[in-house]
Order: sequence, then structure tokens, then C-alpha cells
Amino acid sequence: MTEVNDNARHQKKMAKRKEIQDREVASKTEARGLLAVHTGAGKGKSTAAFGLALRMLGRGRKVVVVQFIKGAWDTGERHALERFGDQIAWHALGEGFTWETQDRERDIAACERAWDVANAALNSEDVGLVILDELNIALRYDYLALDRVLADIAQRPPNQHVWVTGRNAKPGMIEAADMVTEMMPVKHHFKAGIRAQEGIEF
Amino acid sequence: MTEVNDNARHQKKMAKRKEIQDREVASKTEARGLLAVHTGAGKGKSTAAFGLALRMLGRGRKVVVVQFIKGAWDTGERHALERFGDQIAWHALGEGFTWETQDRERDIAACERAWDVANAALNSEDVGLVILDELNIALRYDYLALDRVLADIAQRPPNQHVWVTGRNAKPGMIEAADMVTEMMPVKHHFKAGIRAQEGIEF
Repeated sequence: MTEVNDNARHQKKMAKRKEIQDREVASKTEARGLLAVHTGAGKGKSTAAFGLALRMLGRGRKVVVVQFIKGAWDTGERHALERFGDQIAWHALGEGFTWETQDRERDIAACERAWDVANAALNSEDVGLVILDELNIALRYDYLALDRVLADIAQRPPNQHVWVTGRNAKPGMIEAADMVTEMMPVKHHFKAGIRAQEGIEF
Repeated sequence: MTEVNDNARHQKKMAKRKEIQDREVASKTEARGLLAVHTGAGKGKSTAAFGLALRMLGRGRKVVVVQFIKGAWDTGERHALERFGDQIAWHALGEGFTWETQDRERDIAACERAWDVANAALNSEDVGLVILDELNIALRYDYLALDRVLADIAQRPPNQHVWVTGRNAKPGMIEAADMVTEMMPVKHHFKAGIRAQEGIEF
């Protein structure tokens, strides 16, 4: 008896929830290219962007990845995405983290070169998604000017999506974005003495 | 002159930072399978897990995905991952969201079936990564018992990684995890009236 009542209650509650959900979905009608930002000190910022690349590739659209900090590193995701041939272009144009290069001028020059490549993608009608990986770091250290970056992003084809990653997103970047997620570290295995592992961190 | 000083200051600061960084890395020596959780109300929880799958696939390891809520939906990531053939097994065993089915018994039966498949993966020595997508939702509604789920996860092969996604992760799940990231919504494009788009939301 109680179980029957429980089920009836559950059904009623969920029917109501569905009504709200359907109304919500119906109210959203616009489709256009999004500017999204993944920031915060937690893991998953770049990984979620690469997961999205996968989704776009599965839909037959072209993806361009520009990495502003990582250089010619050997990463698992890069290997995997090679399977998609011409559908994806991967540009790892960084020189490494600022504490690796220890040379501000060199960092700036690398970011300038990376931005030229990014800007070419932002001007390509056939590119569905541009991932600007660790761009927030380049902006934070003023290796690139925010105004110029936002102006170039704003003039892209209307159906093109742009995903920006990296800690410490500038307020102006958050302001300009359609969607912002902050990845918050609740717990991290490095703290327990576990090292970076192949397939997980790289 | 100022510029030279600036560069010298930058170099010194970054050299110091590198020293700290190197010491940090050297202190982490353990390698083992991780239990990670992506929770929170923001976007990117499942997407980051699929991005990680890509990294593992790029490293030649096997991946099993079990979806506890999503059913036989047509998703871009699923299409894309078909390219990896036997290296990946994708099981979408949900019946849809609870407000779609409106039938608690049916939801529980679907979760039970999904757990059997998950458990088989957790017993396979050759599987490098098991993604338990939206498992937190199944646990939240008590469709599956947390104790049993954690016990099955704990007895997996020592080098196997497990990634759990979904809002409202239970305290016991967070307690058991090696790594937890909370995806926090700072801004969401649905609020601006933009609808779910192919390649982005599915």
C-alpha cells in the first residue's frame, strides 16, 4: 500500500517537473555560436573542451585547437584526435609554462604567433569550434591584450563556437562570454602524493 | 633600462617558481588507479570525462562508458568514439531523466542493469578507465545503494581509473574519491534564451 502511494507520489512529482522542464525548453529558441569559458583552479578545464571537440567531430564539423602555453608535448588527446584527419587542426604553439621559459619576451612572441593562428581560424566559415587552450594565462600575464582578443572573437562567423580555457579568466572575458563554468578543486590526488600519470594528466 | 630590469625580475621570479614546482613534482611518486568525481550544477562534468576517455584511448588503453540516465540517445561524442572500435565500449542504459519516465520502479530496474554492466568492467583487468556517467543521480534518488557501489569500485584492479559524474555527489562518494572537481555555473547561455545546439549540448 505504502509502495503504491510512493509510486503515485513519485509519478505526480515527476509529471509536474516535466511540465516545468518542457516549458523551459520551449522558451529557448535562439541558436548561435557561443563564447564559453572554463576557468578555476580545478581539473577538467581543457579536458572538457576536448570532450566538446569530440562531440563536434561526431557531428561532422571542423575543429581547430590552439594551445597558448603547451608546446610540442606528447599528449594522449592529440594522438587520439589524429584519427579525425582533416576534420581537426591541432596547433600547440606555446613555449611551456612561464616558469619553464623564464623569458617574458619569448613568451610574448610565442603568444603573438599563436594568436595569428587563432585569428585565422576565427575567420574561417567552415570551422565549427575553436578551442583557445590556456588563453586566460596568456591574458593574465598581459602577453596578449584583452581588447584585441575580444574584438577578434566578436567578429567571427555567427555560427562558430569558441571555447576559452585557463585559470584566472579576466573579468572582461567573463563579461563577454555566453557561458562560464568554474572548475573548483574539492580534492586533488596530487596532495595525497600521487604523481601525474599517462592517460590521466597527459 | 626599465625593460632590462623587468626582464631580470621576471626571470628571477620564474626561476624561483620553477624550483618550487620541481620540488613538488619530485615529492609525488605513487601511481595507481584513481577514483574521480565531477559534480556541481555547471556544464562540463560528462564532457570532461569524455575528454579524458580520449586521452586514455590515445594512450592505447581500453575505456568503458556506462550511462545511468541517458538512454539510446544520439550523441555526437558517441558517434566520434565509434572510430576507436573495440578500444571503447559504450553502454547507454538509462531510461531518461526521472521526470521523463515518471516511474520509479522502472528507473530502479534500469539502474540495476546498468550496475551489472559497470561491475563487469570493474572486474576487467584490461580496462584502463571506467566512466560511470550520471551515477551520482542514480545514487541521489537511492536507485542504487552507495555502500554496494563503493565496495564494488574498491575491489577493482589497482591500475584502473574510475570517473563518476553527476550533480549532488553524496558525501560518502566524495569521501571515497581521490579527486573531486565541482563544476560551478558562473553564467549559462540557456538563461539568455539560447537553445540546446547540436555539437554543443548533444
